[in-house]
Amino acid sequence: MTNAQIKQIAEDIRTMRTRGAGKIGRAAARALKIVARTTKARNSAEFIKELDRVSKLLLGTRPTAVSLSNAIRFVTLKAKLIKDADLQTLRNIVMSRADEFIRVSNEAVKRIGEIGARRISDGDMIMTHCNSDCALAVIKTAFKQGKHLEVFVTESRPMKQGLISVRDLSRAGISTTLIVDSAVRHFIRDIDKVIVGADSIAANGAVINKIGTSQLALTAHEARVLFFVAAESYKFHPGTLVGRLVEIEERPSKEIVNPKRFPGVRIRNPVFDVTPPDYIDLIITERGIIPPSAAYVVLQEQFEWKPGEELI
Amino acid sequence: MTNAQIKQIAEDIRTMRTRGAGKIGRAAARALKIVARTTKARNSAEFIKELDRVSKLLLGTRPTAVSLSNAIRFVTLKAKLIKDADLQTLRNIVMSRADEFIRVSNEAVKRIGEIGARRISDGDMIMTHCNSDCALAVIKTAFKQGKHLEVFVTESRPMKQGLISVRDLSRAGISTTLIVDSAVRHFIRDIDKVIVGADSIAANGAVINKIGTSQLALTAHEARVLFFVAAESYKFHPGTLVGRLVEIEERPSKEIVNPKRFPGVRIRNPVFDVTPPDYIDLIITERGIIPPSAAYVVLQEQFEWKPGEELI
Amino acid sequence: MTNAQIKQIAEDIRTMRTRGAGKIGRAAARALKIVARTTKARNSAEFIKELDRVSKLLLGTRPTAVSLSNAIRFVTLKAKLIKDADLQTLRNIVMSRADEFIRVSNEAVKRIGEIGARRISDGDMIMTHCNSDCALAVIKTAFKQGKHLEVFVTESRPMKQGLISVRDLSRAGISTTLIVDSAVRHFIRDIDKVIVGADSIAANGAVINKIGTSQLALTAHEARVLFFVAAESYKFHPGTLVGRLVEIEERPSKEIVNPKRFPGVRIRNPVFDVTPPDYIDLIITERGIIPPSAAYVVLQEQFEWKPGEELI
Amino acid sequence: MTNAQIKQIAEDIRTMRTRGAGKIGRAAARALKIVARTTKARNSAEFIKELDRVSKLLLGTRPTAVSLSNAIRFVTLKAKLIKDADLQTLRNIVMSRADEFIRVSNEAVKRIGEIGARRISDGDMIMTHCNSDCALAVIKTAFKQGKHLEVFVTESRPMKQGLISVRDLSRAGISTTLIVDSAVRHFIRDIDKVIVGADSIAANGAVINKIGTSQLALTAHEARVLFFVAAESYKFHPGTLVGRLVEIEERPSKEIVNPKRFPGVRIRNPVFDVTPPDYIDLIITERGIIPPSAAYVVLQEQFEWKPGEELI
Amino acid sequence: MTNAQIKQIAEDIRTMRTRGAGKIGRAAARALKIVARTTKARNSAEFIKELDRVSKLLLGTRPTAVSLSNAIRFVTLKAKLIKDADLQTLRNIVMSRADEFIRVSNEAVKRIGEIGARRISDGDMIMTHCNSDCALAVIKTAFKQGKHLEVFVTESRPMKQGLISVRDLSRAGISTTLIVDSAVRHFIRDIDKVIVGADSIAANGAVINKIGTSQLALTAHEARVLFFVAAESYKFHPGTLVGRLVEIEERPSKEIVNPKRFPGVRIRNPVFDVTPPDYIDLIITERGIIPPSAAYVVLQEQFEWKPGEELI
Amino acid sequence: MTNAQIKQIAEDIRTMRTRGAGKIGRAAARALKIVARTTKARNSAEFIKELDRVSKLLLGTRPTAVSLSNAIRFVTLKAKLIKDADLQTLRNIVMSRADEFIRVSNEAVKRIGEIGARRISDGDMIMTHCNSDCALAVIKTAFKQGKHLEVFVTESRPMKQGLISVRDLSRAGISTTLIVDSAVRHFIRDIDKVIVGADSIAANGAVINKIGTSQLALTAHEARVLFFVAAESYKFHPGTLVGRLVEIEERPSKEIVNPKRFPGVRIRNPVFDVTPPDYIDLIITERGIIPPSAAYVVLQEQFEWKPGEELI
Repeated sequence: MTNAQIKQIAEDIRTMRTRGAGKIGRAAARALKIVARTTKARNSAEFIKELDRVSKLLLGTRPTAVSLSNAIRFVTLKAKLIKDADLQTLRNIVMSRADEFIRVSNEAVKRIGEIGARRISDGDMIMTHCNSDCALAVIKTAFKQGKHLEVFVTESRPMKQGLISVRDLSRAGISTTLIVDSAVRHFIRDIDKVIVGADSIAANGAVINKIGTSQLALTAHEARVLFFVAAESYKFHPGTLVGRLVEIEERPSKEIVNPKRFPGVRIRNPVFDVTPPDYIDLIITERGIIPPSAAYVVLQEQFEWKPGEELI
Repeated sequence: MTNAQIKQIAEDIRTMRTRGAGKIGRAAARALKIVARTTKARNSAEFIKELDRVSKLLLGTRPTAVSLSNAIRFVTLKAKLIKDADLQTLRNIVMSRADEFIRVSNEAVKRIGEIGARRISDGDMIMTHCNSDCALAVIKTAFKQGKHLEVFVTESRPMKQGLISVRDLSRAGISTTLIVDSAVRHFIRDIDKVIVGADSIAANGAVINKIGTSQLALTAHEARVLFFVAAESYKFHPGTLVGRLVEIEERPSKEIVNPKRFPGVRIRNPVFDVTPPDYIDLIITERGIIPPSAAYVVLQEQFEWKPGEELI
Repeated sequence: MTNAQIKQIAEDIRTMRTRGAGKIGRAAARALKIVARTTKARNSAEFIKELDRVSKLLLGTRPTAVSLSNAIRFVTLKAKLIKDADLQTLRNIVMSRADEFIRVSNEAVKRIGEIGARRISDGDMIMTHCNSDCALAVIKTAFKQGKHLEVFVTESRPMKQGLISVRDLSRAGISTTLIVDSAVRHFIRDIDKVIVGADSIAANGAVINKIGTSQLALTAHEARVLFFVAAESYKFHPGTLVGRLVEIEERPSKEIVNPKRFPGVRIRNPVFDVTPPDYIDLIITERGIIPPSAAYVVLQEQFEWKPGEELI
Repeated sequence: MTNAQIKQIAEDIRTMRTRGAGKIGRAAARALKIVARTTKARNSAEFIKELDRVSKLLLGTRPTAVSLSNAIRFVTLKAKLIKDADLQTLRNIVMSRADEFIRVSNEAVKRIGEIGARRISDGDMIMTHCNSDCALAVIKTAFKQGKHLEVFVTESRPMKQGLISVRDLSRAGISTTLIVDSAVRHFIRDIDKVIVGADSIAANGAVINKIGTSQLALTAHEARVLFFVAAESYKFHPGTLVGRLVEIEERPSKEIVNPKRFPGVRIRNPVFDVTPPDYIDLIITERGIIPPSAAYVVLQEQFEWKPGEELI
Repeated sequence: MTNAQIKQIAEDIRTMRTRGAGKIGRAAARALKIVARTTKARNSAEFIKELDRVSKLLLGTRPTAVSLSNAIRFVTLKAKLIKDADLQTLRNIVMSRADEFIRVSNEAVKRIGEIGARRISDGDMIMTHCNSDCALAVIKTAFKQGKHLEVFVTESRPMKQGLISVRDLSRAGISTTLIVDSAVRHFIRDIDKVIVGADSIAANGAVINKIGTSQLALTAHEARVLFFVAAESYKFHPGTLVGRLVEIEERPSKEIVNPKRFPGVRIRNPVFDVTPPDYIDLIITERGIIPPSAAYVVLQEQFEWKPGEELI
Repeated sequence: MTNAQIKQIAEDIRTMRTRGAGKIGRAAARALKIVARTTKARNSAEFIKELDRVSKLLLGTRPTAVSLSNAIRFVTLKAKLIKDADLQTLRNIVMSRADEFIRVSNEAVKRIGEIGARRISDGDMIMTHCNSDCALAVIKTAFKQGKHLEVFVTESRPMKQGLISVRDLSRAGISTTLIVDSAVRHFIRDIDKVIVGADSIAANGAVINKIGTSQLALTAHEARVLFFVAAESYKFHPGTLVGRLVEIEERPSKEIVNPKRFPGVRIRNPVFDVTPPDYIDLIITERGIIPPSAAYVVLQEQFEWKPGEELI
């Protein structure tokens, strides 16, 4: 019986064996496709019920993972809207929507690279923070088009993912400079464009991303340097449409120092911060380039979230 | 012969055995006092010449150390202005000015603590960066006065001097929190006042201080959080009166990462950055509290720098 | 004959016996439902004509009441779009749309309270102006959820509706402070969020509300305090889509002082002012939370206003 | 055979005998209408193919003229979407869409005048730049409504099209003042509203218009003077949805000075500049008034550009 | 014995029978003049001691009245600096300095009116807040010079001193309009200049004045309307040079409402607020016009406050 | 008799045969030196009277020329302060002060070039407006020091003095680009520093200079480009200390167009505009570099203008 397969997918998301917004979303789409292919439902109503049950199961594994609810909605919504159609039609719709989600998602980074690269000019000095596939795709695509670029990368304490970006860019042959997070403002006037990724994007265009992003955005804004966010469209957060706040995770203090060496000292280690839309010039998605003020529209048209509607 | 003593003082400054703005300034004052006490000059003219010679010797040891030129000027200026007075008068003036510089300098941190503490209110949340004696004096003085305080300290990469501040404040019994430099904007809305030190202060009130200071100031400014600089008055930079730029030192890249692990990657490690006066609410000196726009006046009245006059 | 009932409804709106955006809108919906239930029309065309006649009658009673035109449009648009359908279908559609408008409108304040309360955190200091059902619903809902809150209320001269809010909040058990309108900036740094209502909302997200609102918004903006508007979606003003300005009513000068005591002095008493969208963080409606930049979209999707279309 | 007519239309666009956004768009619509009327296609598929061929031919004449691609899309999209319908239906659709485009376009300036005039108040001091039909229509319509106006016009170097505007307004009986481009900030505090036209409008609401527009917008913004853009909706640039940059043409240096008199001096003569949406209060189109943040929506709903879709 | 006279002067200040910055300062000068005229001191040392004793007595009556310490310092400083001069010389100096203070102070309002009126142009719309002699002097002097003016006056809750200003201006024949405090932003775009008084002025140019002033300044700043402060130079606060904060008095809640009618409601009634120097264009004193950034210089040169020096 | 010489000097200033701030000031100094050398006065009192008479004569020739009153004051003030000294001493003082003024003034442009060049870095892109000796001196001095520079020059309508600058810089071998005034914002992001001259400088640091300067400063400020003013210290305007406004001259309309070709059109042609100090980073004088906030101090210490003192 296929239930085992679906359970395994859910389990892998829960235990974070499957991680990363894209992988989680595609896994959920795959699970729902399995439901459609293998369902024992005798009619449309039973099938819709089964879909709902599996959707809930999947959502429960990582309730705050925004790509999870977006993927489930994308795959199941059409079938639910015409739920009186015959069973085979509904199954086909779910399978084809699942395929579409997986395909678009798989190509998203590449497509973002292509679209974003249009905004990179020959000779640009670029700054990036942390380690984002989408942001690096934009830079590397522009570089492959023959544009001369230099890239400043911030260390990105505490986990120093900037070192991964530095190595990746440098190996691609791009002239790369490493600086500490504190040195952003010292160098910002030499920079033409900042490009970062996103963990999720709220309905008002605010971007939740690696701690330090909002400081970088503010500094770029002060110096009138363009600030781009590169992110797949399933990172737009539907819950924010009805007022939900995006929770900011805090991670163990030992990532910063050994707390035993500093008895009595509190150590705060938030993973993300929130960049207000006023400091963002463009959001580059696989579906095109939008100003942050259009995030609300994207949520409605991409995932057909209805006004007032809660998450599943 | 006393020349040996003076040479030793100069040597200690050059080799950085004597370091820190205050210590350097006081060492120079001491050297000049020795000249006045032990001079073999037979008349005023010879004495002034000897002063000039020793001044040049001292200045040459660390030509960009702003406290050095300020101290020398403070000690010698009066004698030079009345250079036709008799030898003994001039010697007395130099000795008494040297004593005054040393005394004021020695008490400066304490006095800054007292003056600055008046601007700290009971219940304040304070943020500081790096490790500044003057900034910590303000905080600790306010705390000793019975005010309840909480202090956020940034790590201050690459040398992490924030850890020294954290330990110092924590041992003083003050509730202290450590964060990475990137997390400033995430927490800034909880903060009432930011207090930092200064390496030097330009004629237009711009503050040169540890890398990251200007980003912190910008972030405080955005959130309408008060931003205070605590610094001795001999840190005001006279050269900026005639257009000299304050040079920003860069230190070895290995302070950030092992460069061998990142072949082909450039690593930039500036030690200081420049905070524009627009982001500074007050400068706390041992002579009182000034707005940054008064830096020009302080330079003129404290060290009697004349318009258009070059450094020694 | 039912005409009497409809005339009464219209009369009550005209004489302001029926007042308040919600009550006016629901009264209009009721009137149109009566038309649908009791019409003597023999075919769809006659029915549509009758709807148009009554719509005009209602609109004429308070031509600038934005909830009036929104309600009429909501109730009649669908029937008009399929005006070739049979009479009974059209009557049913109008009755069901009228019911929907009335139901949604009746629940709107409660729903706004629930959605808005998600943006209130435990320990928040809140400021409000004048006396808005929607704004108070947000505060009281959050309080009932067990969040600790303190609320500052401005007096709201000249009519001092702030006193009503103060009493309402205080009776609900919420810690409440009264201040004069001039004291907003003195206290704003202690405030976490400002919440006000709206009289109407323009297509560009500008909010028309009680005089003093825009000053409060500006002051909150300067201090980087969040500024929320809570308003039912039928307060969005369709006329602004085609350039109509929202007129600002002026009321009698005697509300401010006895004009006889100040002969020769002009007294100006505007009731509302306009808060620009730049100073508004969120608009909380019963359909969800939107950034002000989405007002244009709400008008189009909620009431299906077509580009370029004039009011009825 | 009609091909000759279509070739002539294309040729006239290419050689700029047909110029101006409106005329180009209408010419393209006319050409496509001729195709629909005179086609020899035997079935729908052949007709669609012919439409595509002619579309490409037209687009090739001025690949960067934004009204050209908008017109072609507007005329052909519906037919393509139902391409399986019978030939006659498709031909009718194309002809009627072409007529609609031509009619709306012809009336657009007049309609913009009417809508925009609502935002002009009696007694307004207005400033305009260069020579825009739409901007002047707004001013002249308001003046014909009996509003008292004064208009400041900038010279608009290098081509001094401001002189054309000055003459046009002055002949219409409007009190008109001419100033050099440099004098804008000196007079801006006397101005109530600035109105300019647009060459094209990007998806984020940025406006590309005659060089100097962005400086004027910045100056108006600094002085809190309202800044309106008046432009037909076919000037919204779909390519910007997928990241294309609007290229800024540079014209011959001799428009500025005789380059032979200044050997060795470079002379730069860009025709347009980009005004960021932050400095624009309203965009007045023939379909209504929008905030710049709604440009993205207009592009999608007016021309049904799909996310991610490239230009034809 | 004259001690009785001095005691009476001190008593009148303490009981606020003598009130207002100017009157308090002049009373103190008068008291010190009496000392000089009637002293029984047998030598200079005794006289200086007596001066110190009386100074302390006077200062103790209203320790936070800034004009009191400024007056005492102005009258006594010169004598103290040359304290070794003969008794008669010292007595003469004190008497003449007392006379000078009284004369300058008495003429200050008139002189401020003359200097300030130069910055008022024919046709200006002016706004003022509360009831300041200096601000009204500027307006009335300009009006007497034949300039056409209109003045908007805010009510100034809770004590409504705006009504006094309205009456004063109106009786002087000036076209005057009364508005509530909340209506400032609604009218500000019609205003050319705002003029207010000051309670005291800090070393950084911040102005402490009637509650609501800072909101008005912010609103003027947003609209780019000039904001002038008119104040006698003895209102500059020397204590702020060494970090003292200006305390903001709170007055009884019953000035706002009858607290018994609002049981459980807190009522806050601060009298003053602080306007930051960034929102002030000019400070008009009887000694000339200064930018707020020169407050530091005025304090030093007018009252010869030395850096670091505490209040008496 | 020498009176003839002095009358000629005065006449030359009046008829503008002697023009330019420096030349006017030096001519006045020369005239006063002639008085001192050739006076027939029999005692100091008569001499002072004669100085006053000639001062008035000179001042009357161009009452608004700020360098005139500054020069006269500089030359005569010391003599007036010690007016009881013997005649010869006073004559010597006047002669030596006149020599000093002439010498400093003659060297000022060169010295400004040297001081300002310190703020120019190798590789800088510089923009300048109109044709200022001081601004060009800074650029050319830096270029002679071997720094690589590129300079953008604005045309500066209506008189196009930018063409003079273009030629001057280009002949000096500096890479120069000419643009129209409207194109500033299009190119500003490529610029590192803007340098302009000044006609006069107000006590609050505002700079009066060629029309268009304030727009350029605003545009530089928006783009965070440094904005420098280069001007001799005798251009600081003492009248602004007591509230006098700097009048902005308007020149004939024919400089813009032939007014006969535009009957009924008003043409406004102001020569200068006012740049607020907020947009100025540094003022470069021959006495050093000051922030605009120090203009007040310069006026006081350079020309010893006393607070409240009127122009001569």
